[in-house]
Amino acid sequence: MSRNFNLLKNGAIMIRINENFKKLQASYLFSDIAKRVNAFQEAHPDVKVIKLGIGDVTLPLPSACIQAMHHAVDEMANAKTFRGYGPEQGYDFLRKAIVKGDFQSRGADIAADEIFVSDGAKCDTANIQELFANDITIAIPDPVYPVYVDTNVMAGRTGEYNNDRYAGLVYLDCTAANHYVPAIPSTPVDLIYLCFPNNPTGATATRTQLAEWVAYARANKALILFDAAYEGFIRDPQLPHSIYEIEGAREVAIEFRSFSKTAGFTGTRCAYTVVPKSCMGYDAAGTAIDLHKLWNRRHCTKFNGVSYPIQRAAEAVYSIVGQAQIRELSDAYLQNAAYIRSRITRLGFTVSGGENAPYIWINTGTDSWAFFDRLLNEAGVVTTPGSGFGSCGQGHIRISAFNSMENVKESMARIEKVLA
Amino acid sequence: MSRNFNLLKNGAIMIRINENFKKLQASYLFSDIAKRVNAFQEAHPDVKVIKLGIGDVTLPLPSACIQAMHHAVDEMANAKTFRGYGPEQGYDFLRKAIVKGDFQSRGADIAADEIFVSDGAKCDTANIQELFANDITIAIPDPVYPVYVDTNVMAGRTGEYNNDRYAGLVYLDCTAANHYVPAIPSTPVDLIYLCFPNNPTGATATRTQLAEWVAYARANKALILFDAAYEGFIRDPQLPHSIYEIEGAREVAIEFRSFSKTAGFTGTRCAYTVVPKSCMGYDAAGTAIDLHKLWNRRHCTKFNGVSYPIQRAAEAVYSIVGQAQIRELSDAYLQNAAYIRSRITRLGFTVSGGENAPYIWINTGTDSWAFFDRLLNEAGVVTTPGSGFGSCGQGHIRISAFNSMENVKESMARIEKVLA
Repeated sequence: MSRNFNLLKNGAIMIRINENFKKLQASYLFSDIAKRVNAFQEAHPDVKVIKLGIGDVTLPLPSACIQAMHHAVDEMANAKTFRGYGPEQGYDFLRKAIVKGDFQSRGADIAADEIFVSDGAKCDTANIQELFANDITIAIPDPVYPVYVDTNVMAGRTGEYNNDRYAGLVYLDCTAANHYVPAIPSTPVDLIYLCFPNNPTGATATRTQLAEWVAYARANKALILFDAAYEGFIRDPQLPHSIYEIEGAREVAIEFRSFSKTAGFTGTRCAYTVVPKSCMGYDAAGTAIDLHKLWNRRHCTKFNGVSYPIQRAAEAVYSIVGQAQIRELSDAYLQNAAYIRSRITRLGFTVSGGENAPYIWINTGTDSWAFFDRLLNEAGVVTTPGSGFGSCGQGHIRISAFNSMENVKESMARIEKVLA
Repeated sequence: MSRNFNLLKNGAIMIRINENFKKLQASYLFSDIAKRVNAFQEAHPDVKVIKLGIGDVTLPLPSACIQAMHHAVDEMANAKTFRGYGPEQGYDFLRKAIVKGDFQSRGADIAADEIFVSDGAKCDTANIQELFANDITIAIPDPVYPVYVDTNVMAGRTGEYNNDRYAGLVYLDCTAANHYVPAIPSTPVDLIYLCFPNNPTGATATRTQLAEWVAYARANKALILFDAAYEGFIRDPQLPHSIYEIEGAREVAIEFRSFSKTAGFTGTRCAYTVVPKSCMGYDAAGTAIDLHKLWNRRHCTKFNGVSYPIQRAAEAVYSIVGQAQIRELSDAYLQNAAYIRSRITRLGFTVSGGENAPYIWINTGTDSWAFFDRLLNEAGVVTTPGSGFGSCGQGHIRISAFNSMENVKESMARIEKVLA
């Protein structure tokens, strides 16, 4: 921080870019998949390809949400009920519904003004790193949702990419040996990304496992970024839905939630982030700094709130009817997941997920892309090669349960023919 | 960039914050205004306070947009027409409507795949700085929309705040002397924020003035960030609506547009950013780098697209009916603006804006807050003190035309009684 800003005015030469972007690896995963699928389809125009690759929902929005949106759209048509700028943090009606429905109902002590409504957990998990110093030590699971990594690369918190990994990050290996739940690292870290139920592995964390991370964070003045976007798929009553069900988490964890997968909002866009008022970071002098205030400042400076009709749709998720309807949605996907899991297990593979999660993570015993190609070319089924999520994903594929039961059954029948 | 990332793993101590946030000045402007308004209202419960402060629209959404949203909401209710994740950059139907309606119709050479649809120009103008190096030299107008400044402060591109200004920024003074259109700076700069029609001054830039900036940027390998959120209020046929109406701008300018003020979308949330494929930045070695690709990478990593029904509402703005309806909206606000401008001028004040812009910027000849207080306490009218937008705003107030003609007439009658 020794730069002399007063000299800057003579420093202009040309508009220079953020060099960190150059370190980013081109993301060919889904475009590579698309290319191979297109090539296969061209060669076999008669085969109905079944897509169990991308994690996008397929069932329509719950009617409670549809009704609420129609009503809110009508309000926007009338000067008396029209809404202009809303609060950046979200309307009170939604923040209150969220804390009642998602936290207080489970004994987690979260208040409405600790909720920041946004247009996506992708944005929030991408933006949160802005609050932190550039030379902190970051722990990131492998395999992982690429957004956690890439946003830290862009911000300059890593070195170059070599041998499938960025220098400067502490990777938390998630393997069959640890049932895809990472162990606490042996070297100290400041910031920890965790995601349960996990994308891509479908693994879940027990109360005891989360409590260990919370204890670690408290002992080391570290912070946990807890991505719970798939929380709505948990059925096991023993599993925690929120990290705030763990005592002591309020001081050391920020949680991300989304309506995308649990209520079918991938194209509708609504999510939220919880930053408890007791959650602390530290300045260079070691003084505790309120992260809620910091995030509020960031949120209000760079974001202008979620569309009013969309917030009404999200609120409707918490009505009695809405809760029943989203349960029906996730039940449908979980039935698919259970079916896939049982069929794949019967074929002799070790499998993670598919219970309390919409993803089935298969230890294929071979190369990820080789297995992907075999399922595509011999069964006409699209999956996702695990190596695309990190080096520990090598040897695995991810199957997504977001499709119709009919397609799921058909795809499993085809896969059984190929692999049996 | 000499940091050794391989040593990082032993560096963890505690989760340290981004110290740049400490430099940010608390933004008391609108909360201060609210406090004074509340105090006045409590002391004078019978006075109907008229608010001409915040720049938020008051008229309902055009019926073309309402219809389009209802239709799109119904599509989301049906599995056959349901939409999950859309393209991060926006749907083709909207990108095509935008280029046809906003650019090609004016002879500006912009293609659909150069449009990035987003949920707000605030987000886009806030996020764009991520593409650039940390030690570039930045020119920012004064007075200014605070987002341009604060986001660069957060990113560490400034020094401390002293005497109403951040060290390290080149401020472009906008004063009565230059009719609130800044002159080209005498010291070289790399990145230039411009906004026309301007918030808060209502000033517009002629073709010749913009051409000078474009020539400057081309000669100095600088980049212009052109905020045209108020473009829809331009009525003078001589004034350019887009910077791309200026020859040579495609290589040196990024433009921000919004549906907020022109179509009443402040609570509906849709905007877009234009990054031409020929627009270039430079890396440390001086190699030209395609900013379109860089922004695309940023956008796809940190954003997941705008809600489908909202994109349909935005598309409807470009229908024949929609165009007539948004014209009616902005005409109504422009009538208010013209009325305010004529009345204030008649009182002997020098005024900027109020023509081709929804803001009237008054040179009060006294302290901003003193004048604000006088209008509040003696006329019951809320305005915005110009000093809140930067040190060159001192002595001014901003009056917003976003209200009903009835309220505008009433407020001017009251102000005339006080000031005449």
